[in-house]
Amino acid sequence: MAGAIEFLEGGTVTSVQGFLAGATFAGLKTFAEDKLDLAIIFSETLCAVAGVFTKSTIVSPTVGFNRKLVAKGSAKGVVVNAGIANTCVGEQGFKDAEDMAAAAAQKLGVGADEVLVCSTGVIGVELPMSLIRSGMEQINLADQGGHDVARAMMTTDTRPKEVAVTFEVDGKQVRMGGVAKGSGMIHPNMATMLSFITTDAAVDQAFLQAKLREVSDESYNMLTVDGDTSTNDTVLVLANGLAGNSPINAGSAAAESFEEALSQVCVHLTRELARDGEGASRLITVEIGGAQDKEDARKAARSIASSNLVKSAVYGADPNWGRVLMALGRCGTIVDEAKIDLYVNGVCIMESGKPVPFHRDAVVALMQGSEVIFRLQLHMGQGEATAWGCDLTEEYVIINSAYTT
Amino acid sequence: MAGAIEFLEGGTVTSVQGFLAGATFAGLKTFAEDKLDLAIIFSETLCAVAGVFTKSTIVSPTVGFNRKLVAKGSAKGVVVNAGIANTCVGEQGFKDAEDMAAAAAQKLGVGADEVLVCSTGVIGVELPMSLIRSGMEQINLADQGGHDVARAMMTTDTRPKEVAVTFEVDGKQVRMGGVAKGSGMIHPNMATMLSFITTDAAVDQAFLQAKLREVSDESYNMLTVDGDTSTNDTVLVLANGLAGNSPINAGSAAAESFEEALSQVCVHLTRELARDGEGASRLITVEIGGAQDKEDARKAARSIASSNLVKSAVYGADPNWGRVLMALGRCGTIVDEAKIDLYVNGVCIMESGKPVPFHRDAVVALMQGSEVIFRLQLHMGQGEATAWGCDLTEEYVIINSAYTT
Repeated sequence: MAGAIEFLEGGTVTSVQGFLAGATFAGLKTFAEDKLDLAIIFSETLCAVAGVFTKSTIVSPTVGFNRKLVAKGSAKGVVVNAGIANTCVGEQGFKDAEDMAAAAAQKLGVGADEVLVCSTGVIGVELPMSLIRSGMEQINLADQGGHDVARAMMTTDTRPKEVAVTFEVDGKQVRMGGVAKGSGMIHPNMATMLSFITTDAAVDQAFLQAKLREVSDESYNMLTVDGDTSTNDTVLVLANGLAGNSPINAGSAAAESFEEALSQVCVHLTRELARDGEGASRLITVEIGGAQDKEDARKAARSIASSNLVKSAVYGADPNWGRVLMALGRCGTIVDEAKIDLYVNGVCIMESGKPVPFHRDAVVALMQGSEVIFRLQLHMGQGEATAWGCDLTEEYVIINSAYTT
Repeated sequence: MAGAIEFLEGGTVTSVQGFLAGATFAGLKTFAEDKLDLAIIFSETLCAVAGVFTKSTIVSPTVGFNRKLVAKGSAKGVVVNAGIANTCVGEQGFKDAEDMAAAAAQKLGVGADEVLVCSTGVIGVELPMSLIRSGMEQINLADQGGHDVARAMMTTDTRPKEVAVTFEVDGKQVRMGGVAKGSGMIHPNMATMLSFITTDAAVDQAFLQAKLREVSDESYNMLTVDGDTSTNDTVLVLANGLAGNSPINAGSAAAESFEEALSQVCVHLTRELARDGEGASRLITVEIGGAQDKEDARKAARSIASSNLVKSAVYGADPNWGRVLMALGRCGTIVDEAKIDLYVNGVCIMESGKPVPFHRDAVVALMQGSEVIFRLQLHMGQGEATAWGCDLTEEYVIINSAYTT
């Protein structure tokens, strides 16, 4: 049984012992007061590291760089910039990713293969390396620096996304913190985003990697903002072991607690990412029950959460449930129309495939809240899944019709 | 070698000899002067019939009804209504589809299994059968009636889509006409739409069905407006043989001419559908060359044409080509980034995977025209494909956030 997991108020990646962080304005984003665009997360103690990456066939050189470090299994930090994605710039991109990691390693006094590197922003523009190098020197690392990292990672995000939890392992209090960015170009797999998670738990690296993949599949990979998959998506976990527990592996009593904490951190950040989708005014949660299997449930949940027509209807608080059925039908999930029940924020509006007379004004009022929940019971089996997304607004179009111009 | 195919000015389904058509306002759409919502296309001579249908798992009862008639291979007409989709209404929908076809057959004095039936509009609302029955009586069939059918089929379409061509078979002049509707909920497969094609060519039914499927895969199934697949998509071809040619089959000298004519009619209507996508201001054409195979080319073309980020950038006439690469990368098509060339309306802006310095203002000016063409050469093989779509505008969101309310 998993122990209690508590959320820490104002928690972030540096709420975890042994992790320092800092950020600066290096000049990659358009200048504004207090704007940050280059950041470091650092642990003096060597960390077990795990990562999951975009499945796009066109990726930033940072993705290949990080895959190698994650395969090695350990690292001490991450350097990240926002504003420029370092993607589709030819050979120069590989050199710049290495140089950026090396510059951070030099500043931190660690080996060049101990720092992971991530970039996010416009595709097809080279990193201005002299700005990166001089920015690196300006970064001050502090044990309260996590909040600055969360802000420095933002592109079209309107607010930082961060969280921390605490839970018990072997009678010792363990902490886990996370930050994430991502607002547009968000769709499984990976959801288009960067997320960094820190923990002072001692964790077996193979176990950490396996659990990160599982949890990502149920959180970040069930997130969709606009159906577009980024070239740079990356989730990294750094576990420095300072809590002093015996290393957690698949056989540990604490395995379940650790997985549950990782899941709660990732789901929390996933929901924050969905809520802050470009132009979004509402969070959409789609819960599928009774699918033939888990994969069918996942397909259905993601299809509905990513439908432009469903998203537009949610924006208009319009209970046009035919679109939910359309999005279910298009995705290939096996259904029997005559068995489907559909609930909107708890109100049944379709039962056994037939419309239920419902009080329209009441459902419209429910849909005007900050979260719209579609729950479908397919009555075909035991498959369950949840996906998150957001509504589609004029603001999304305005943001994205003039991003580089 | 295919003979010359000429477009007929103002052509439509009744530009073909032996086809009559008519439409009326039965009361399914909100009333407006000159509004039409119920229509019939009719040939007194029995026609070879072919059809392709939505691949959604949730479909209108009309789809099952028509599949049976197409399997039988012959029919004399089609009845169609707009405003209500007759989908997701339980058992009643099957009864209403049959009754609507039967009412049309009775009016036309033909067998109940000789009239196909299509519906398009809001999902989850029952057809008001008494309005349908009394509307049916008001329809006057005429040899100029095709234009009214094209208008009666419209839902959120802003204009009718129709076309006719003429070409020679066995020294005889043959004609082919087509109408289509569809504006939202449009994505392969089938692109969300209804299309009816008439021809006076004599055509072997099996050949007609095979060619319709092939041509649809290169036209309607390469169309995307919003990534959503309708429950009612249907394309039907009726060939009444009045041109007096010897029936065309796979071995005929005229096989190629016929296929080319069918292709030109379908591609013309596909482009018209894309251009009139909900809220659209521009047509997007994506041409993929040099993919490893045809399927890879199709995937890439459709992924790019359906990307919300690409569509938003086209709306803003923003040459943010990184998004085109992102949409290519996300779709699973095999690429080598260092080989890719990208052209925007004929101007090369990326060569061998690296940005080419281009005159930004000139490309923006090109993108401000009525059609934006992205051409990608992947240099991996011989696979080619073209997809069509439209830009994403605030107007799309406005239309779809309040469709039923």
